[in-house]
Amino acid sequence: MDFINFIGFLAAAGTTVAFIPQVIRSVKTKSTKDISLVMYSLFCIGISLWIIYGIFLNSQPIILANSITLLLAITVLITKFRYG
Amino acid sequence: MDFINFIGFLAAAGTTVAFIPQVIRSVKTKSTKDISLVMYSLFCIGISLWIIYGIFLNSQPIILANSITLLLAITVLITKFRYG
Repeated sequence: MDFINFIGFLAAAGTTVAFIPQVIRSVKTKSTKDISLVMYSLFCIGISLWIIYGIFLNSQPIILANSITLLLAITVLITKFRYG
Repeated sequence: MDFINFIGFLAAAGTTVAFIPQVIRSVKTKSTKDISLVMYSLFCIGISLWIIYGIFLNSQPIILANSITLLLAITVLITKFRYG
């Protein structure tokens, strides 16, 4: 893996892993009132479009990173629906 | 612009614009306790790496979309530091 791809890999890992502490916080505190429902709805739509884009480009990294991000973002969205 | 690039453009717009309602909510309510500080810290680092990646690839769309996302995510981070 060359240096540029390594930066891209780190970038994808960072913006994906970032959602794990939010999932943990929302599940643990059962409190999500400060989280924007519109943000996570738009974000899930955007991430789904990234996955479709990755499928068109046949890019495994785009598909993989965004699939994990989508799962995490959907989890936050579910806690938002559940705890308000 | 072909169809695949159009999907990519929509995807980038979605995951960028998504943060606007969160910024509005946090600024308006002055309440950010349910938002994870670790999430937004990691996310800002990840997005900064995407911008560096875009500079290496000389990709205007990656640089532009992620620069706007970074500004919005930093704004959420500032409200988090301010309102706790």
